[in-house]
Amino acid sequence: MSESAVQKKEKLLSKEVEGKLDWKKWKAERKEEKKRRKEAKIIKQLEKQRRDEEQKAEQLLQEQERKAKGRPYTVSIALPGSVMDNAQSPELRTYLAGQIARACAVFCVDEVVVFDERGEDAKSVEGEFKGIGKKGQACVQLARILQYLECPQYLRKSFFPKHQDLQFAGLLNPLDSPHHMRVDEEAEFREGVVLDRPCKAGKGSFVNCGMRKEVQIDKQLQAGLRVTVSLNKVQNTESKVYKGVVVAPHIPRREGGLYWGYTVRLASCLSNVFTGCPHKEGYDLTIGTSERGSNIDSVTLHPFKHLLVVFGGLQGLEASVDSDQNLDVTDPSMLFDLYLNTCPNQGSRTIRTEEAILISLSGLRPKIASLFVEHKAV
Amino acid sequence: MSESAVQKKEKLLSKEVEGKLDWKKWKAERKEEKKRRKEAKIIKQLEKQRRDEEQKAEQLLQEQERKAKGRPYTVSIALPGSVMDNAQSPELRTYLAGQIARACAVFCVDEVVVFDERGEDAKSVEGEFKGIGKKGQACVQLARILQYLECPQYLRKSFFPKHQDLQFAGLLNPLDSPHHMRVDEEAEFREGVVLDRPCKAGKGSFVNCGMRKEVQIDKQLQAGLRVTVSLNKVQNTESKVYKGVVVAPHIPRREGGLYWGYTVRLASCLSNVFTGCPHKEGYDLTIGTSERGSNIDSVTLHPFKHLLVVFGGLQGLEASVDSDQNLDVTDPSMLFDLYLNTCPNQGSRTIRTEEAILISLSGLRPKIASLFVEHKAV
Ligand SMILES: C[S@@+](CC[C@H](N)C(=O)[O-])C[C@H]1O[C@@H](n2cnc3c(N)ncnc32)[C@H](O)[C@@H]1O
Ligand SMILES: C[S@@+](CC[C@H](N)C(=O)[O-])C[C@H]1O[C@@H](n2cnc3c(N)ncnc32)[C@H](O)[C@@H]1O
Repeated sequence: MSESAVQKKEKLLSKEVEGKLDWKKWKAERKEEKKRRKEAKIIKQLEKQRRDEEQKAEQLLQEQERKAKGRPYTVSIALPGSVMDNAQSPELRTYLAGQIARACAVFCVDEVVVFDERGEDAKSVEGEFKGIGKKGQACVQLARILQYLECPQYLRKSFFPKHQDLQFAGLLNPLDSPHHMRVDEEAEFREGVVLDRPCKAGKGSFVNCGMRKEVQIDKQLQAGLRVTVSLNKVQNTESKVYKGVVVAPHIPRREGGLYWGYTVRLASCLSNVFTGCPHKEGYDLTIGTSERGSNIDSVTLHPFKHLLVVFGGLQGLEASVDSDQNLDVTDPSMLFDLYLNTCPNQGSRTIRTEEAILISLSGLRPKIASLFVEHKAV
Repeated sequence: MSESAVQKKEKLLSKEVEGKLDWKKWKAERKEEKKRRKEAKIIKQLEKQRRDEEQKAEQLLQEQERKAKGRPYTVSIALPGSVMDNAQSPELRTYLAGQIARACAVFCVDEVVVFDERGEDAKSVEGEFKGIGKKGQACVQLARILQYLECPQYLRKSFFPKHQDLQFAGLLNPLDSPHHMRVDEEAEFREGVVLDRPCKAGKGSFVNCGMRKEVQIDKQLQAGLRVTVSLNKVQNTESKVYKGVVVAPHIPRREGGLYWGYTVRLASCLSNVFTGCPHKEGYDLTIGTSERGSNIDSVTLHPFKHLLVVFGGLQGLEASVDSDQNLDVTDPSMLFDLYLNTCPNQGSRTIRTEEAILISLSGLRPKIASLFVEHKAV
């Protein structure tokens, strides 16, 4: 016998004791774990609370920052459509419009006004306008190309059917402005087009914002409308759509300080640039540009909400003033708060309008920035 | 007898007396006239003297004014030839070069350096260069178009034989700078080409300065040379030629404050832009440009004689630094006295080089002007 009964018994007993001890231990451990779990739950709750609070604080801070970041003013420029007629080929005509659009984007211009340098009276001369539109082909084509370039790529097929004016659009350099989002870019705001596919009654509309999913907005809007959408911070990743609300197109600028493209307006003559101002207060700082203006280096701008900078065509603003029957003055400087030479000591006898836009806006930029220092500092 | 002898006699006598009186009068008058003429001669002499003195004073004044007007500094820019490869057609490639040339003229740039962004090592890679010239087609074509536009129209057939690089030169906008004279323009200085038609020995050379007559200069120079001519103040209108003297090409700028076009230089890599400086003192203020540079609004320039402003290509100056085997640094800002963002808060993700040149030079202009106030004031 290799093992005695006693030994066996002892082994069993010991196992029994072990079992008993295990049971006690197990109970204690379970209790401990229960406690731990309870604690963890409380910690989690507290954490969630803290997180919620933090998030709220963060949101508040962001809101504040956004308000601080917001840009409280607008910049408009105006130029005659006739500049298009200086181009030497249809390709270069298109390219010129593109240069103007790019200059506007680089300097965060909010509105471009294309005016007819031949003045209002030209309207009555029948057959004078070749091509499309009342304002003559140059104005309309310039306006159309400006709008085309401003429109985010993913919306172009909705808003720009094939048109002769856009025949050479392939040559245009993109604006690459912040509202031209790439498909996977995360963004607070997006431009979109309301789709012709109704949601359930009272459930708003679907919008194509150039994302992988469509965006369901709160309001029911007409299909085909271009809208600015503020996307909800928290999205349900499982959902088939994103959620958002429609906001006014100036919100990204006013609250986020984001450059959000420009609007385009046609004016039948120079005076209509002023009278057709979309801001009910009008432009409160107007600047005309000319080599015969006063030296930009010796002026400071007075505070403004809506700045307008006006450029002339081949013959300068004198020509635009002359042909405008609503204007009694002959000296264009009378029309503006400031009449500025933005390139003193120029080394060429004449600066082209498309060059003058970049030069003038670059010269005005630090003067504008100094008026809005808090905004600039962010 | 109707008339008595006495009466006749009396008549004769009286005539005789009259004759005698006339004679006396005549003599007196002649004397008077002689006196008058003498006086007139003296007056004339005095007038001439005065005029001579006045003229001398005037010349002295002009000289002084010219010295005061003179521009005592130079501005150079550098950019990679690769910018040409961003153009979307041969026409737009030409147009792009023209935009760069115009920007240089408008801002009185004295030297344009076109550097090879692929760096020196690229030279050893056989077959890498398509087209003409060692530095790759883009650099050479850009340089050629820049030179072509800088050259006064009347000299182009002497210096620019037909060339494929200039195939679309008809699309280029002229520089219209002060040294591009019209035929009847009166000017102190003119650009010309030495003609292959010798004057008599020791009588200098003939130069075509784009005027109705040729200009005979003091020195005998090699035919085909491009020269800057200072035309004599007083010209003999009867003469078959104008007279003038050859001066260094920087004289119109240094003494007259005139913008006199730019020179063009090819550089095999970025570092060669610095080492190949034509001024023996080198560039004493160097500025690199980048959206990652420091805000232009918060810098002042230190006084300089030779400013260099460097632009990058599609990939920025980082790419130019990376490919340059002579440079140990990776951060381009190390290469420059200042590394500047000349367009803070840009509304486009990227500014094209041709835009950045106009924007940057417009931003730097008032800062440069403030360094040379006396000069600016004229
Ligand atoms: C081709 S220029 C007009 C030239 C015309 N001969 C004149 O004397 O006004 C076209 C436009 O560019 C702008 N411009 C040209 N040079 C300028 C300068 N030095 N300062 C400000 N604007 C300028 C003006 O708006 C001008 O109407
Ligand atoms: C297309 S940009 C280069 C962009 C490149 N991705 C980068 O990050 O530098 C071409 C050149 O334009 C100039 N540039 C562009 N934006 C600028 C800015 N905000 N300030 C100064 N120069 C700028 C620089 O010389 C730059 O190398």
